[in-house]
Amino acid sequence: MHNPVVWTPYASKAKHMKRYEKLAAEIAEAIRSGVLAKGEKLPSVRHTGAARALSASTVFQAYYLLEAQGLIVARERSGYYVNAGSSQLQPHGVQESVRKEASTVDVSELVFEILEATRAREGVALGSAFPSPLLFPLDKLAACMSSSVKAMDPWLTVKDLSPGDLELRRQIAQRYLSDGLVVAAEDIVITNGALEALNLCLSAVTRPGDTVLIEAPAFYACLQAVEQHGLKAVEITGHPQQGVDLEAMRQAILQHRPKACWLMTSFQNPTGSLMPQKHKRALVDLLTEHQIPLIEDDVYGELYFGTHKPLPAKAYDHAGLVMHCSSFSKCLAPGYRVGWVAAGRYARQVERLKLTSSLATSVPAQQALARYLTKGGYDRHLRQLRHQLLLQQIRFMEGIASYFPAETRISKPDGGYFLWLKLPGKVDALELYRHALANQISIAPGPMFSAHHEFRDYIRLNYGHGWNAETARALQWLGAFVRDAQKKNSNE
Amino acid sequence: MHNPVVWTPYASKAKHMKRYEKLAAEIAEAIRSGVLAKGEKLPSVRHTGAARALSASTVFQAYYLLEAQGLIVARERSGYYVNAGSSQLQPHGVQESVRKEASTVDVSELVFEILEATRAREGVALGSAFPSPLLFPLDKLAACMSSSVKAMDPWLTVKDLSPGDLELRRQIAQRYLSDGLVVAAEDIVITNGALEALNLCLSAVTRPGDTVLIEAPAFYACLQAVEQHGLKAVEITGHPQQGVDLEAMRQAILQHRPKACWLMTSFQNPTGSLMPQKHKRALVDLLTEHQIPLIEDDVYGELYFGTHKPLPAKAYDHAGLVMHCSSFSKCLAPGYRVGWVAAGRYARQVERLKLTSSLATSVPAQQALARYLTKGGYDRHLRQLRHQLLLQQIRFMEGIASYFPAETRISKPDGGYFLWLKLPGKVDALELYRHALANQISIAPGPMFSAHHEFRDYIRLNYGHGWNAETARALQWLGAFVRDAQKKNSNE
Repeated sequence: MHNPVVWTPYASKAKHMKRYEKLAAEIAEAIRSGVLAKGEKLPSVRHTGAARALSASTVFQAYYLLEAQGLIVARERSGYYVNAGSSQLQPHGVQESVRKEASTVDVSELVFEILEATRAREGVALGSAFPSPLLFPLDKLAACMSSSVKAMDPWLTVKDLSPGDLELRRQIAQRYLSDGLVVAAEDIVITNGALEALNLCLSAVTRPGDTVLIEAPAFYACLQAVEQHGLKAVEITGHPQQGVDLEAMRQAILQHRPKACWLMTSFQNPTGSLMPQKHKRALVDLLTEHQIPLIEDDVYGELYFGTHKPLPAKAYDHAGLVMHCSSFSKCLAPGYRVGWVAAGRYARQVERLKLTSSLATSVPAQQALARYLTKGGYDRHLRQLRHQLLLQQIRFMEGIASYFPAETRISKPDGGYFLWLKLPGKVDALELYRHALANQISIAPGPMFSAHHEFRDYIRLNYGHGWNAETARALQWLGAFVRDAQKKNSNE
Repeated sequence: MHNPVVWTPYASKAKHMKRYEKLAAEIAEAIRSGVLAKGEKLPSVRHTGAARALSASTVFQAYYLLEAQGLIVARERSGYYVNAGSSQLQPHGVQESVRKEASTVDVSELVFEILEATRAREGVALGSAFPSPLLFPLDKLAACMSSSVKAMDPWLTVKDLSPGDLELRRQIAQRYLSDGLVVAAEDIVITNGALEALNLCLSAVTRPGDTVLIEAPAFYACLQAVEQHGLKAVEITGHPQQGVDLEAMRQAILQHRPKACWLMTSFQNPTGSLMPQKHKRALVDLLTEHQIPLIEDDVYGELYFGTHKPLPAKAYDHAGLVMHCSSFSKCLAPGYRVGWVAAGRYARQVERLKLTSSLATSVPAQQALARYLTKGGYDRHLRQLRHQLLLQQIRFMEGIASYFPAETRISKPDGGYFLWLKLPGKVDALELYRHALANQISIAPGPMFSAHHEFRDYIRLNYGHGWNAETARALQWLGAFVRDAQKKNSNE
């Protein structure tokens, strides 16, 4: 490596989170994941304190916090219990892996219509692709931006072309290293958000007419990119919890000889699925066997609710075939448009494509992020963000369980800020979308995540904007509509 | 128009420049353009004052300034004279318009090699594509960035997606209006520099395999874009002063039925040619007749040395066929990566392509520029910048005339910061480039501006980095090399 990076162990940064907050976050996750079931009694304060070597007051603070968040209730002279709340919805059943023929993609018109309508409206933004910008340390970023732009070496405006600012690339390489991945700073290309990175990767490894493997449902920008690049797509249906089936993928590879594979391996958009680590490893082995590059979209990887960050497939890449794309847009700095790709053996090619397509990423934005990352505080912010999103997910799950028919199937993602619902009784998601929009509620209907407008009875809901009375009313309205449509359809 | 814009007459802003500076700039331009020839006597202070209704002291100040700049000399009891300096080089002869067959483009490897070598080296950056960053009001921009990012509405991070920040688009529309062009703010799409705009335009109107008309020599990014998009190019040789020949263009249109035409109409890179206004009008008429969109690269339009800004071809566009691409990178804010396109009838298409390829341009950078433009001061900065570049051009012309063989042919652009030289005696520009690089001097050899590595005896020199002893030595070294090579070639 040209630029040695200093290893900052992740654990040493954890001290910034207060003890009781850490405990509360762990218990909240246990409740969400079902380790602590509804109505179940929490261990006593004394027991928890002893087991974890925490003072009683720390444990009390954690329990008070959870009580204030509505996750647990205190019963007099008995202790703390997990809030029984309303009935739970069932998760999705196992979806069959369907392998389709390779086909061209023509999804844009529907997606644009929905995106434009969603943006134009005021109201409850359950269809939004973004979490609330209020979740991010915009003040601290502004301060970093202000200091860095004032101190900026004028010559950086000429030097920080593709592959991007060296200090920022060093900081990103350090974060890889603290996760156990060895990525050289010079193999990282800074891009205008992850979206540009993904598109550059696709340009690097495909030519018009080629076939690529994608998942179904897929993030609509993936479908748009496939369409724009003139590619054919083979869709591998993803399991709502575990992501794509590897056997289906193997068969598709043998049949279609794809030039690339584009997947979101952690907290997939829209399903929220998290590919198990052993699947990720097997995926990389499979692709390596066939020398097929993986374009790994990992923009939600930092938003995990568990105790450990799920490593990307890139962690198992020894052949340099994985192009790991991510950004700061969903976890730190929305609107700054700073993303990157660790493109392995394709790094130089991506760097050149960046140079010829947009030359460079905004230098002040790169500088501001490099400074923020250097100053520290990012990991603390991330812990708070994850905890907040976890609480919001729990609230939304409860709200949906209260208002939607019991036959509704729901994902229970271990991270991110999307829920993926299968509506009962042949309810048409596009119809629901249109009626909801007329009522100032946006949702993301299933067909926008499919090359062939499938998933017609699915919707994606964003819980990244938090819970309030308006949200509750919106979910109530949606639930009532689904119930009515369900009745109407069963009478027909 | 949805968003009415307020017309700020350009003239009313001129008052910010001091009178003597304005006079000095006008005289400098008269010297550069040959209206005042070397050795010629300037009008007396009394005469000039009377003719322009200026006080004698204002005229004296202007003359002192010009004397300090080395443009004029005072002779005792006689008055002021244009500095005789060294002998003038001849301008280029008229180049013949050559129409080539449509062909694929494969220029990237050479261009990348040169760009990488040029960037890696310290030394005299005569091959650079950028002017010195020290020419720009980076402090004021930093102050604008600092205030705007601190006051930024968090929701803008979600709202300022393609087509971009409304206030910035309004400011750009106002500038169009003050130049006499009516462009609606909603038809402007903000991009990651002009380069992204140009690429998006090409994506909007072509498909792989299509033919496009370009000029020769051409900006290498145009050649790279044509190559990356899988297009065929028909090259129309540009006149070194007037740009492309319209008759050649008409014939090429009839023969090749191109899907688009990509040109730099003002201060072309690399030749510096300025297409006369009547040619621009005729060009638009010709393209409109055949319904061919024009991708107009106008990043140097603000850097004119004359008294009036040369209007772009867009000014004559009534059919919405001209996609006018520009940016702030070369005239205000290098490294911010904020450009735009006024794409006429293709505006919605470009907006969508931007959305799917990179989503948005960095919001803080957009905000900073919107604030800078609102506060005013841009026109004053531009006047100073133009004057500075003009002085630098004069210095460079003199230096080249002193050090290069008399048979060297040179362009004399009316704006921008490039000189285009034809070397005498079959001197190989690539050989010169390689030897110069070994001596810490970068130049841009002609073949990098050609789809077929032509212009082998041409070089482009950047005078945007100013004049100093090092520059003089570099020109001297280059001139000596050319002289030696010329001798060697004539002996063979």
